[in-house]
Amino acid sequence: LTALTVADCGERALIARITQRLPVPAWVLVGPGDDAAVLEPVRGALEVLTTDVQVDGVHVDRRFVPPEAVGHRALAVNLSDLAAMGARPRAALLSLALPPSLGLEELDRILDGLLGLAASSGTAIVGGNITSTEGPLAIDVTVTGSVHRRRILRRSGARPGDEVFVTGTLGDAAAGLHRLRSAFERGEDLLAARTCAARYLHPEPRLRAGVQLGAHRAASSCMDLSDGLADGIRQLAQASDLGMTLDAAAVPVSAETREWLAQHGFDPLQVALAGGDDFELIFTVRPAHAGRLRGVRRLVGNLPITRIGVMTRSRALIMRDGRNERELPAGYEHFKS
Amino acid sequence: LTALTVADCGERALIARITQRLPVPAWVLVGPGDDAAVLEPVRGALEVLTTDVQVDGVHVDRRFVPPEAVGHRALAVNLSDLAAMGARPRAALLSLALPPSLGLEELDRILDGLLGLAASSGTAIVGGNITSTEGPLAIDVTVTGSVHRRRILRRSGARPGDEVFVTGTLGDAAAGLHRLRSAFERGEDLLAARTCAARYLHPEPRLRAGVQLGAHRAASSCMDLSDGLADGIRQLAQASDLGMTLDAAAVPVSAETREWLAQHGFDPLQVALAGGDDFELIFTVRPAHAGRLRGVRRLVGNLPITRIGVMTRSRALIMRDGRNERELPAGYEHFKS
Repeated sequence: LTALTVADCGERALIARITQRLPVPAWVLVGPGDDAAVLEPVRGALEVLTTDVQVDGVHVDRRFVPPEAVGHRALAVNLSDLAAMGARPRAALLSLALPPSLGLEELDRILDGLLGLAASSGTAIVGGNITSTEGPLAIDVTVTGSVHRRRILRRSGARPGDEVFVTGTLGDAAAGLHRLRSAFERGEDLLAARTCAARYLHPEPRLRAGVQLGAHRAASSCMDLSDGLADGIRQLAQASDLGMTLDAAAVPVSAETREWLAQHGFDPLQVALAGGDDFELIFTVRPAHAGRLRGVRRLVGNLPITRIGVMTRSRALIMRDGRNERELPAGYEHFKS
Repeated sequence: LTALTVADCGERALIARITQRLPVPAWVLVGPGDDAAVLEPVRGALEVLTTDVQVDGVHVDRRFVPPEAVGHRALAVNLSDLAAMGARPRAALLSLALPPSLGLEELDRILDGLLGLAASSGTAIVGGNITSTEGPLAIDVTVTGSVHRRRILRRSGARPGDEVFVTGTLGDAAAGLHRLRSAFERGEDLLAARTCAARYLHPEPRLRAGVQLGAHRAASSCMDLSDGLADGIRQLAQASDLGMTLDAAAVPVSAETREWLAQHGFDPLQVALAGGDDFELIFTVRPAHAGRLRGVRRLVGNLPITRIGVMTRSRALIMRDGRNERELPAGYEHFKS
């Protein structure tokens, strides 16, 4: 008995299989199944739009990443961009490129992960499309969100002297990915590695932190960290035409990740700087707005918010480690040759 | 001297190459380059969202479709969905999966086609992403539009006795694609075939017709024809839980296409029924609203609007040809095995 694949389904049957699982809130006037979705706008709010894709073999590796995590990540990377704008999620569209050999059960599990995060984040899936591909599985998600005009978090807007903060801890996702990949390559048990790779497999978009930073008008600039801290610093500084001095000792790495990395011969700081997939927020705060940041801290529960440096008029990106100062190393970029 | 490919560029350089070409209208408060785009809403209007993809080898074949047409089609298929809802276009996001071997010049020409249609349709490109792929080139576009509440065109809403209309002529795109593919397979000159395949290469989304049908409240249901007339009839009838009787003699096929098809042994009616890519609108009108339709006709210039049948309470899909009646043949579906 062979398990069913998407090739055994018609396009319509696949679409029906997905749409029957989608709750349609009252503000979705026309949901999946028509030529386009129609939504009630949020009164007085601006529209926020972003799109990002997860391609098997490029952004995620299905050989060791379980289907639920593939689905979760496909939505999470987009919600993280909304968080970085201070926006609340509204709707999402899914564009699925599926290899004909993909099992229906695997597709269902991808949807489990995606729809679970959609439900917990209040994101309505309102449409999309499915296509057959001879290439790798690709999940292209577009999300819309809403934000009030004075609460937008931009990448630009920092001034010299603004302090730089990050949410959460860094490097956990990169360490988790390394453990997963190593376990896979050595033919070891993936289940054990997966429990240690939760931050990689199920990144939690910092929606509450983003919304509160916007609502308190606490941040002078903000972005999310998808390609490592060094890349984030570089882009945030560039957007405001400034430099930054990073306090290496302040970079928050969890005790568990720090210990595991040290045991395996990795420098935790380097992993935090170059390792991607953390999806934490990096943002700047004017010294005079420290009180606003305290207001945010009270509303984000256990999420750490750590000061890691200061913006400088000089455009140099400097890492200070005790008495030593050196140039910030580079981050990760797709297409690099 | 080898021509430059996208692999010679960094991701950032590619993004910069594209964003520098994008005009940013005043209602785009945050455009490309931040974590997400932020737009002013249209006062009093609803938000319309849709997404569709063009994959090389599945929806389009770059061996004989020029790059400008690849780009044009990627946006056009989405704008056609907006037209089918009665919506005006607002913004688009591009998600580009590029093979590393793609030439930069070819990428620029794809953008020429896409940005040309964006400009002529008033669509602002506000963001997107680029990823490297080992699979085929894929251009995934999401568009947003606006429509007023009482002007939405839905697929459902037809009643028995409503008359069925289509815009434009059908089968031209399928005939054009056939000519292109034949010329390619025979190693003939593609330029000559391309001039005859304009309707396939550069489909014109029926935005004005859709907006006017909505504004006049002339249509009781509407959708666009992407997969052939038979498929459109089937879906439109199903959405209203009705049947339809099609008058075969009324199906509008252009004189040029009819002649070419007949000369080459094809039945023009079959090509109109099964051939996709026309991107005309099919819609229904209550008999009492014939005056509203006349109002629409006056505002859509030379675009023909042809009555092709009537909705029926019986769910059967019937094709009447003179005195003969038979069941409507099937259309095209992706993933069919």
